[in-house]
Amino acid sequence: MSMKAISSKDAAALDKDLMEIGGFSLDQLMELAGLSVSQAVYRVHPPSAGKNILVVCGPGNNGGDGLVAARHLAQYGYYPSIYYPKEGKKELYQRLKTQLHNLSVPFVPDFTEALKSADLVVDAIFGFSFGGPLREPFPSIILQMESTSVPILSVDAPSSWDIQAGPPKEGPGAKFMPQTLISLTAPKPCVKYFTGRHFLGGRFLTKSILEKYGLDCPQYPGVDQIVELGVDAEGRL
Amino acid sequence: MSMKAISSKDAAALDKDLMEIGGFSLDQLMELAGLSVSQAVYRVHPPSAGKNILVVCGPGNNGGDGLVAARHLAQYGYYPSIYYPKEGKKELYQRLKTQLHNLSVPFVPDFTEALKSADLVVDAIFGFSFGGPLREPFPSIILQMESTSVPILSVDAPSSWDIQAGPPKEGPGAKFMPQTLISLTAPKPCVKYFTGRHFLGGRFLTKSILEKYGLDCPQYPGVDQIVELGVDAEGRL
Repeated sequence: MSMKAISSKDAAALDKDLMEIGGFSLDQLMELAGLSVSQAVYRVHPPSAGKNILVVCGPGNNGGDGLVAARHLAQYGYYPSIYYPKEGKKELYQRLKTQLHNLSVPFVPDFTEALKSADLVVDAIFGFSFGGPLREPFPSIILQMESTSVPILSVDAPSSWDIQAGPPKEGPGAKFMPQTLISLTAPKPCVKYFTGRHFLGGRFLTKSILEKYGLDCPQYPGVDQIVELGVDAEGRL
Repeated sequence: MSMKAISSKDAAALDKDLMEIGGFSLDQLMELAGLSVSQAVYRVHPPSAGKNILVVCGPGNNGGDGLVAARHLAQYGYYPSIYYPKEGKKELYQRLKTQLHNLSVPFVPDFTEALKSADLVVDAIFGFSFGGPLREPFPSIILQMESTSVPILSVDAPSSWDIQAGPPKEGPGAKFMPQTLISLTAPKPCVKYFTGRHFLGGRFLTKSILEKYGLDCPQYPGVDQIVELGVDAEGRL
Protein backbone atom coordinates (compact mmCIF):
# COMPACT_ATOMS: atom_id res chain seq x y z
CA MET A 1 0.00 0.00 0.00
CA SER A 2 1.30 3.42 -0.85
CA MET A 3 -0.52 6.67 -0.29
CA LYS A 4 -0.69 10.11 -1.81
CA ALA A 5 1.31 12.84 -0.12
CA ILE A 6 -0.08 16.02 1.37
CA SER A 7 1.69 19.38 1.14
CA SER A 8 2.73 21.29 4.23
CA LYS A 9 0.05 23.90 3.54
CA ASP A 10 -2.69 21.30 3.13
CA ALA A 11 -1.53 19.42 6.23
CA ALA A 12 -1.94 22.63 8.26
CA ALA A 13 -5.39 23.22 6.75
CA LEU A 14 -6.37 19.60 7.45
CA ASP A 15 -5.40 19.94 11.12
CA LYS A 16 -7.43 23.15 11.30
CA ASP A 17 -10.42 21.38 9.73
CA LEU A 18 -10.17 18.53 12.23
CA MET A 19 -10.49 21.01 15.05
CA GLU A 20 -12.80 23.67 13.64
CA ILE A 21 -15.15 21.45 11.64
CA GLY A 22 -14.33 18.02 13.04
CA GLY A 23 -14.90 18.86 16.69
CA PHE A 24 -11.53 17.49 17.82
CA SER A 25 -9.43 19.17 20.48
CA LEU A 26 -5.67 19.35 20.21
CA ASP A 27 -5.56 17.14 23.33
CA GLN A 28 -7.43 14.38 21.52
CA LEU A 29 -5.49 14.60 18.28
CA MET A 30 -2.13 14.69 20.01
CA GLU A 31 -3.11 11.76 22.21
CA LEU A 32 -3.98 9.63 19.19
CA ALA A 33 -0.95 10.81 17.21
CA GLY A 34 1.43 10.11 20.09
CA LEU A 35 -0.21 6.76 20.71
CA SER A 36 0.40 5.79 17.09
CA VAL A 37 4.05 6.81 17.42
CA SER A 38 4.40 4.57 20.48
CA GLN A 39 2.88 1.65 18.55
CA ALA A 40 5.37 2.17 15.70
CA VAL A 41 8.23 2.11 18.20
CA TYR A 42 6.90 -1.12 19.68
CA ARG A 43 6.57 -2.65 16.20
CA VAL A 44 10.10 -1.90 15.02
CA HIS A 45 11.79 -2.12 18.40
CA PRO A 46 9.95 -4.24 21.00
CA PRO A 47 11.11 -3.95 24.62
CA SER A 48 13.18 -7.12 24.21
CA ALA A 49 15.39 -5.19 21.76
CA GLY A 50 16.33 -2.64 24.42
CA LYS A 51 14.23 -0.44 26.63
CA ASN A 52 16.15 2.84 26.67
CA ILE A 53 14.29 5.17 24.32
CA LEU A 54 15.58 8.71 23.95
CA VAL A 55 12.78 10.99 22.76
CA VAL A 56 14.01 14.29 21.32
CA CYS A 57 11.23 16.86 21.32
CA GLY A 58 11.04 20.11 19.40
CA PRO A 59 9.13 23.22 20.49
CA GLY A 60 5.91 22.58 18.52
CA ASN A 61 3.24 19.93 18.09
CA ASN A 62 5.75 17.37 16.76
CA GLY A 63 7.44 17.61 20.14
CA GLY A 64 4.06 17.24 21.83
CA ASP A 65 3.47 14.02 19.91
CA GLY A 66 6.83 12.85 21.24
CA LEU A 67 5.83 13.65 24.83
CA VAL A 68 2.61 11.63 24.46
CA ALA A 69 4.50 8.76 22.83
CA ALA A 70 6.99 8.70 25.71
CA ARG A 71 4.17 8.33 28.24
CA HIS A 72 2.73 5.34 26.40
CA LEU A 73 6.21 3.84 26.04
CA ALA A 74 6.64 4.08 29.82
CA GLN A 75 3.30 2.26 30.23
CA TYR A 76 4.56 -0.47 27.85
CA GLY A 77 7.55 -1.05 30.11
CA TYR A 78 10.23 0.95 28.28
CA TYR A 79 12.54 3.41 30.02
CA PRO A 80 12.04 6.57 27.98
CA SER A 81 13.97 9.75 28.62
CA ILE A 82 13.24 13.14 27.11
CA TYR A 83 15.56 15.73 25.64
CA TYR A 84 13.51 18.91 25.28
CA PRO A 85 15.90 21.81 24.81
CA LYS A 86 13.40 24.42 23.54
CA GLU A 87 10.10 23.98 25.29
CA GLY A 88 6.92 25.10 23.57
CA LYS A 89 4.63 27.54 25.27
CA LYS A 90 1.28 25.77 25.00
CA GLU A 91 -0.33 24.86 28.32
CA LEU A 92 -0.89 21.36 26.92
CA TYR A 93 2.86 20.74 26.72
CA GLN A 94 3.19 21.61 30.40
CA ARG A 95 0.48 19.08 31.27
CA LEU A 96 2.16 16.43 29.13
CA LYS A 97 5.37 17.13 31.04
CA THR A 98 3.52 16.73 34.35
CA GLN A 99 2.19 13.37 33.19
CA LEU A 100 5.74 12.25 32.44
CA HIS A 101 7.13 13.55 35.74
CA ASN A 102 4.48 11.49 37.53
CA LEU A 103 5.74 8.39 35.73
CA SER A 104 9.30 9.28 36.76
CA VAL A 105 10.36 9.76 33.13
CA PRO A 106 13.56 11.84 33.25
CA PHE A 107 14.15 15.01 31.25
CA VAL A 108 17.83 14.94 30.40
CA PRO A 109 20.04 18.00 29.88
CA ASP A 110 22.66 16.50 27.56
CA PHE A 111 21.77 14.81 24.28
CA THR A 112 25.28 13.52 23.60
CA GLU A 113 25.46 11.85 26.99
CA ALA A 114 21.94 10.40 26.72
CA LEU A 115 22.62 9.03 23.25
CA LYS A 116 25.37 6.80 24.65
CA SER A 117 22.90 4.60 26.51
CA ALA A 118 19.98 4.86 24.06
CA ASP A 119 18.67 1.77 22.25
CA LEU A 120 16.46 3.86 19.96
CA VAL A 121 15.96 7.57 19.34
CA VAL A 122 12.55 9.06 18.59
CA ASP A 123 13.05 12.18 16.50
CA ALA A 124 10.09 14.40 17.40
CA ILE A 125 11.87 17.66 16.69
CA PHE A 126 10.13 19.05 13.61
CA GLY A 127 7.07 18.00 11.64
CA PHE A 128 5.22 19.21 8.56
CA SER A 129 5.47 22.90 9.51
CA PHE A 130 9.28 22.97 9.44
CA GLY A 131 10.58 25.69 7.15
CA GLY A 132 14.20 25.99 8.29
CA PRO A 133 16.77 27.17 9.03
CA LEU A 134 17.88 24.96 11.92
CA ARG A 135 18.73 26.93 15.03
CA GLU A 136 20.92 25.80 17.92
CA PRO A 137 21.02 23.33 19.52
CA PHE A 138 19.37 21.44 16.67
CA PRO A 139 22.16 21.50 14.02
CA SER A 140 24.40 19.69 16.48
CA ILE A 141 21.63 17.20 17.37
CA ILE A 142 20.95 16.47 13.71
CA LEU A 143 24.65 15.89 13.05
CA GLN A 144 24.78 13.39 15.90
CA MET A 145 21.63 11.63 14.67
CA GLU A 146 23.23 11.43 11.22
CA SER A 147 26.32 9.67 12.44
CA THR A 148 25.07 7.52 15.31
CA SER A 149 24.61 3.79 14.98
CA VAL A 150 21.56 3.97 17.27
CA PRO A 151 18.40 3.41 15.20
CA ILE A 152 16.14 6.42 14.78
CA LEU A 153 12.40 6.70 14.28
CA SER A 154 11.27 10.07 12.94
CA VAL A 155 7.83 11.51 13.58
CA ASP A 156 6.08 12.94 10.50
CA ALA A 157 9.31 13.91 8.73
CA PRO A 158 13.03 13.38 9.27
CA SER A 159 13.94 16.56 11.15
CA SER A 160 16.01 19.01 9.06
CA TRP A 161 14.45 17.76 5.82
CA ASP A 162 12.49 20.20 3.69
CA ILE A 163 8.90 18.96 3.70
CA GLN A 164 8.70 19.30 -0.08
CA ALA A 165 12.29 18.91 -1.28
CA GLY A 166 13.64 16.36 1.20
CA PRO A 167 17.13 16.31 2.70
CA PRO A 168 19.17 19.51 2.52
CA LYS A 169 21.90 19.57 -0.15
CA GLU A 170 24.59 20.17 2.41
CA GLY A 171 25.15 20.71 6.13
CA PRO A 172 23.30 19.03 8.98
CA GLY A 173 20.67 16.62 7.67
CA ALA A 174 22.19 16.15 4.21
CA LYS A 175 23.00 12.55 5.10
CA PHE A 176 20.25 12.00 7.69
CA MET A 177 18.26 8.83 6.93
CA PRO A 178 16.29 7.46 9.89
CA GLN A 179 15.55 3.73 9.87
CA THR A 180 11.85 4.34 10.44
CA LEU A 181 9.36 7.09 9.67
CA ILE A 182 5.81 7.44 10.89
CA SER A 183 3.77 9.87 8.83
CA LEU A 184 0.83 11.40 10.67
CA THR A 185 -2.55 11.63 8.87
CA ALA A 186 -0.81 11.41 5.46
CA PRO A 187 2.74 11.19 4.08
CA LYS A 188 4.46 14.46 3.25
CA PRO A 189 6.10 14.98 -0.19
CA CYS A 190 9.61 14.43 1.21
CA VAL A 191 8.86 10.72 1.80
CA LYS A 192 9.94 10.05 -1.76
CA TYR A 193 13.52 10.50 -0.55
CA PHE A 194 13.00 8.15 2.38
CA THR A 195 14.24 4.58 2.08
CA GLY A 196 13.43 2.98 5.48
CA ARG A 197 10.33 1.40 7.00
CA HIS A 198 7.35 3.69 6.69
CA PHE A 199 4.25 3.72 8.88
CA LEU A 200 1.14 5.83 8.87
CA GLY A 201 -0.67 6.94 12.02
CA GLY A 202 -3.62 9.16 12.86
CA ARG A 203 -6.64 6.91 12.57
CA PHE A 204 -9.22 9.65 12.85
CA LEU A 205 -9.79 10.97 9.34
CA THR A 206 -13.27 11.02 7.84
CA LYS A 207 -14.32 10.24 4.30
CA SER A 208 -15.09 13.89 3.61
CA ILE A 209 -11.64 15.02 4.77
CA LEU A 210 -9.95 12.30 2.71
CA GLU A 211 -11.92 13.49 -0.31
CA LYS A 212 -11.34 17.18 0.33
CA TYR A 213 -7.57 16.68 0.36
CA GLY A 214 -7.48 14.01 -2.34
CA LEU A 215 -6.08 11.38 0.01
CA ASP A 216 -6.47 7.61 -0.19
CA CYS A 217 -8.22 5.77 2.57
CA PRO A 218 -5.62 3.73 4.45
CA GLN A 219 -6.57 0.22 5.57
CA TYR A 220 -5.53 -0.05 9.19
CA PRO A 221 -5.63 -3.65 10.43
CA GLY A 222 -7.75 -4.61 13.46
CA VAL A 223 -7.57 -2.12 16.29
CA ASP A 224 -4.09 -0.92 15.31
CA GLN A 225 -3.45 2.82 15.31
CA ILE A 226 -0.72 2.33 12.69
CA VAL A 227 -0.43 0.74 9.28
CA GLU A 228 2.81 -0.02 7.51
CA LEU A 229 2.91 1.51 4.05
CA GLY A 230 4.44 -0.61 1.33
CA VAL A 231 3.03 -3.63 3.19
CA ASP A 232 -0.66 -4.49 3.15
CA ALA A 233 -2.89 -5.16 6.14
CA GLU A 234 -1.96 -8.84 6.11
CA GLY A 235 1.73 -8.00 6.21
CA ARG A 236 2.44 -8.83 2.55
CA LEU A 237 4.71 -6.59 0.53
CA MET B 1 -5.19 -12.03 37.31
CA SER B 2 -7.69 -10.44 39.60
CA MET B 3 -7.52 -6.95 40.98
CA LYS B 4 -8.68 -5.05 44.03
CA ALA B 5 -11.87 -3.03 43.71
CA ILE B 6 -12.17 0.71 44.21
CA SER B 7 -15.16 2.35 45.86
CA SER B 8 -17.31 4.88 44.06
CA LYS B 9 -15.97 7.65 46.28
CA ASP B 10 -12.34 6.68 45.67
CA ALA B 11 -12.95 6.32 41.92
CA ALA B 12 -14.22 9.92 41.86
CA ALA B 13 -11.21 11.10 43.87
CA LEU B 14 -8.85 9.17 41.58
CA ASP B 15 -10.33 10.85 38.48
CA LYS B 16 -9.92 14.22 40.19
CA ASP B 17 -6.30 13.39 41.03
CA LEU B 18 -5.59 12.40 37.43
CA MET B 19 -6.74 15.84 36.30
CA GLU B 20 -5.63 18.10 39.14
CA ILE B 21 -2.35 16.43 40.02
CA GLY B 22 -1.79 14.23 37.00
CA GLY B 23 -2.09 16.94 34.36
CA PHE B 24 -4.64 15.02 32.30
CA SER B 25 -7.57 16.71 30.61
CA LEU B 26 -10.98 15.08 30.46
CA ASP B 27 -10.51 14.95 26.67
CA GLN B 28 -7.43 12.79 27.05
CA LEU B 29 -8.83 10.47 29.71
CA MET B 30 -12.09 9.97 27.86
CA GLU B 31 -10.21 9.31 24.62
CA LEU B 32 -8.15 6.56 26.25
CA ALA B 33 -11.13 5.14 28.16
CA GLY B 34 -13.31 5.04 25.04
CA LEU B 35 -10.46 3.55 23.04
CA SER B 36 -10.15 0.74 25.58
CA VAL B 37 -13.90 0.09 25.35
CA SER B 38 -13.62 -0.20 21.56
CA GLN B 39 -10.76 -2.69 21.93
CA ALA B 40 -12.85 -4.82 24.32
CA VAL B 41 -15.70 -4.85 21.79
CA TYR B 42 -13.29 -5.94 19.07
CA ARG B 43 -11.89 -8.69 21.32
CA VAL B 44 -15.24 -10.26 22.25
CA HIS B 45 -17.07 -9.45 19.05
CA PRO B 46 -14.84 -8.94 15.99
CA PRO B 47 -16.44 -7.40 12.89
CA SER B 48 -16.87 -10.87 11.39
CA ALA B 49 -19.39 -11.61 14.19
CA GLY B 50 -21.66 -8.77 13.06
CA LYS B 51 -21.00 -5.10 12.55
CA ASN B 52 -24.12 -3.45 13.94
CA ILE B 53 -23.18 -2.09 17.33
CA LEU B 54 -25.82 -0.19 19.28
CA VAL B 55 -24.17 2.13 21.78
CA VAL B 56 -26.50 3.35 24.52
CA CYS B 57 -25.14 6.48 26.16
CA GLY B 58 -26.13 8.03 29.46
CA PRO B 59 -25.89 11.72 30.33
CA GLY B 60 -22.50 11.64 32.10
CA ASN B 61 -18.93 10.60 31.46
CA ASN B 62 -19.89 6.94 30.99
CA GLY B 63 -21.94 8.09 28.01
CA GLY B 64 -18.97 10.12 26.80
CA ASP B 65 -16.79 7.00 26.91
CA GLY B 66 -19.46 5.35 24.75
CA LEU B 67 -19.34 8.17 22.22
CA VAL B 68 -15.56 7.87 21.92
CA ALA B 69 -15.80 4.07 21.62
CA ALA B 70 -18.36 4.41 18.83
CA ARG B 71 -16.01 6.62 16.83
CA HIS B 72 -13.19 4.08 17.09
CA LEU B 73 -15.60 1.26 16.20
CA ALA B 74 -16.56 3.17 13.04
CA GLN B 75 -12.85 3.44 12.20
CA TYR B 76 -12.50 -0.34 12.69
CA GLY B 77 -15.22 -0.96 10.07
CA TYR B 78 -18.23 -1.51 12.33
CA TYR B 79 -21.57 0.22 11.80
CA PRO B 80 -22.23 1.78 15.19
CA SER B 81 -25.41 3.63 16.01
CA ILE B 82 -26.04 5.73 19.09
CA TYR B 83 -29.04 5.93 21.36
CA TYR B 84 -28.54 9.02 23.51
CA PRO B 85 -31.88 9.93 25.08
CA LYS B 86 -30.59 12.32 27.78
CA GLU B 87 -27.67 14.29 26.48
CA GLY B 88 -25.12 15.61 28.90
CA LYS B 89 -24.34 19.30 28.96
CA LYS B 90 -20.55 19.30 28.72
CA GLU B 91 -19.15 20.97 25.62
CA LEU B 92 -16.94 17.89 25.13
CA TYR B 93 -20.00 15.71 24.52
CA GLN B 94 -21.14 18.07 21.77
CA ARG B 95 -17.74 17.78 20.10
CA LEU B 96 -17.82 13.99 20.38
CA LYS B 97 -21.23 14.09 18.69
CA THR B 98 -19.81 16.25 15.89
CA GLN B 99 -17.01 13.73 15.37
CA LEU B 100 -19.61 10.97 15.01
CA HIS B 101 -21.82 13.01 12.67
CA ASN B 102 -18.78 13.52 10.43
CA LEU B 103 -18.35 9.75 10.25
CA SER B 104 -22.07 9.38 9.37
CA VAL B 105 -22.75 7.47 12.59
CA PRO B 106 -26.52 7.69 13.14
CA PHE B 107 -28.17 8.82 16.37
CA VAL B 108 -31.33 6.73 16.61
CA PRO B 109 -34.56 7.82 18.31
CA ASP B 110 -35.97 4.41 19.22
CA PHE B 111 -34.02 1.89 21.28
CA THR B 112 -36.51 -0.96 20.78
CA GLU B 113 -36.37 -0.60 17.02
CA ALA B 114 -32.57 -0.28 16.96
CA LEU B 115 -32.16 -3.35 19.16
CA LYS B 116 -33.83 -5.51 16.49
CA SER B 117 -30.90 -5.14 14.11
CA ALA B 118 -28.11 -4.92 16.70
CA ASP B 119 -25.37 -7.56 16.85
CA LEU B 120 -24.03 -6.20 20.15
CA VAL B 121 -25.10 -3.51 22.60
CA VAL B 122 -22.60 -1.31 24.42
CA ASP B 123 -24.14 -0.23 27.72
CA ALA B 124 -22.56 3.16 28.41
CA ILE B 125 -25.47 4.47 30.45
CA PHE B 126 -24.12 4.72 34.00
CA GLY B 127 -20.70 4.27 35.53
CA PHE B 128 -19.18 4.43 38.99
CA SER B 129 -21.11 7.55 39.99
CA PHE B 130 -24.54 5.93 39.63
CA GLY B 131 -26.58 6.25 42.78
CA GLY B 132 -30.09 5.51 41.54
CA PRO B 133 -32.98 5.65 41.17
CA LEU B 134 -33.37 4.95 37.44
CA ARG B 135 -35.38 7.60 35.66
CA GLU B 136 -37.22 7.24 32.35
CA PRO B 137 -36.45 6.18 29.74
CA PHE B 138 -33.79 4.05 31.43
CA PRO B 139 -35.97 1.55 33.37
CA SER B 140 -37.50 0.48 30.07
CA ILE B 141 -34.07 0.25 28.41
CA ILE B 142 -32.69 -1.84 31.27
CA LEU B 143 -35.66 -4.21 31.07
CA GLN B 144 -35.05 -4.69 27.37
CA MET B 145 -31.33 -5.27 27.93
CA GLU B 146 -32.24 -7.86 30.59
CA SER B 147 -34.41 -9.89 28.26
CA THR B 148 -32.72 -9.52 24.89
CA SER B 149 -30.64 -12.28 23.35
CA VAL B 150 -28.29 -9.67 21.87
CA PRO B 151 -24.96 -9.76 23.75
CA ILE B 152 -24.18 -6.75 25.90
CA LEU B 153 -20.91 -5.16 26.94
CA SER B 154 -21.18 -2.84 29.92
CA VAL B 155 -18.81 0.05 30.52
CA ASP B 156 -17.46 0.32 34.09
CA ALA B 157 -20.57 -1.23 35.70
CA PRO B 158 -23.73 -2.97 34.51
CA SER B 159 -26.16 -0.03 34.39
CA SER B 160 -28.80 -0.12 37.16
CA TRP B 161 -26.46 -2.03 39.49
CA ASP B 162 -25.51 -0.44 42.76
CA ILE B 163 -21.76 0.20 42.59
CA GLN B 164 -21.25 -1.36 46.01
CA ALA B 165 -24.15 -3.81 46.38
CA GLY B 166 -24.57 -5.07 42.83
CA PRO B 167 -27.85 -5.84 41.08
CA PRO B 168 -31.02 -4.42 42.60
CA LYS B 169 -33.14 -6.91 44.59
CA GLU B 170 -36.14 -6.33 42.35
CA GLY B 171 -37.31 -4.28 39.40
CA PRO B 172 -35.30 -3.31 36.31
CA GLY B 173 -31.76 -4.64 36.56
CA ALA B 174 -32.47 -7.40 39.08
CA LYS B 175 -31.75 -9.98 36.39
CA PHE B 176 -29.38 -7.90 34.26
CA MET B 177 -26.15 -9.81 33.56
CA PRO B 178 -24.17 -8.48 30.60
CA GLN B 179 -21.89 -10.97 28.83
CA THR B 180 -18.92 -8.62 29.10
CA LEU B 181 -17.80 -5.88 31.44
CA ILE B 182 -14.93 -3.47 31.03
CA SER B 183 -13.89 -1.81 34.27
CA LEU B 184 -12.16 1.53 33.82
CA THR B 185 -9.00 2.26 35.89
CA ALA B 186 -10.03 -0.37 38.49
CA PRO B 187 -12.95 -2.78 39.13
CA LYS B 188 -15.79 -1.48 41.27
CA PRO B 189 -17.04 -3.53 44.26
CA CYS B 190 -20.13 -4.75 42.34
CA VAL B 191 -17.94 -6.91 40.08
CA LYS B 192 -18.15 -9.68 42.64
CA TYR B 193 -21.72 -10.27 41.39
CA PHE B 194 -20.59 -10.33 37.77
CA THR B 195 -20.13 -13.69 36.05
CA GLY B 196 -19.14 -12.83 32.46
CA ARG B 197 -15.87 -11.88 30.75
CA HIS B 198 -14.15 -9.06 32.54
CA PHE B 199 -11.66 -6.60 31.07
CA LEU B 200 -9.81 -3.68 32.53
CA GLY B 201 -9.08 -0.48 30.60
CA GLY B 202 -7.49 2.86 31.37
CA ARG B 203 -3.78 2.35 30.87
CA PHE B 204 -2.70 5.66 32.31
CA LEU B 205 -2.31 5.13 36.06
CA THR B 206 0.95 5.93 37.79
CA LYS B 207 2.66 4.02 40.56
CA SER B 208 1.86 6.75 43.07
CA ILE B 209 -1.85 6.67 42.21
CA LEU B 210 -1.92 2.87 42.41
CA GLU B 211 -0.30 3.09 45.83
CA LYS B 212 -2.50 5.93 47.08
CA TYR B 213 -5.66 3.94 46.33
CA GLY B 214 -4.24 0.54 47.28
CA LEU B 215 -4.64 -0.84 43.77
CA ASP B 216 -2.64 -3.60 42.10
CA CYS B 217 -0.62 -2.84 39.02
CA PRO B 218 -2.31 -4.54 36.09
CA GLN B 219 -0.10 -6.21 33.49
CA TYR B 220 -1.36 -5.03 30.12
CA PRO B 221 0.13 -7.06 27.26
CA GLY B 222 2.07 -5.37 24.43
CA VAL B 223 0.47 -2.14 23.26
CA ASP B 224 -3.04 -3.23 24.27
CA GLN B 225 -5.21 -0.71 26.07
CA ILE B 226 -7.11 -3.58 27.73
CA VAL B 227 -6.25 -6.60 29.81
CA GLU B 228 -8.61 -9.47 30.53
CA LEU B 229 -8.91 -10.12 34.25
CA GLY B 230 -9.04 -13.74 35.30
CA VAL B 231 -6.72 -14.47 32.36
CA ASP B 232 -3.02 -13.59 32.38
CA ALA B 233 -1.10 -11.64 29.79
CA GLU B 234 -0.41 -14.81 27.80
CA GLY B 235 -4.10 -15.67 27.68
CA ARG B 236 -3.93 -18.47 30.31
CA LEU B 237 -6.69 -18.80 32.91
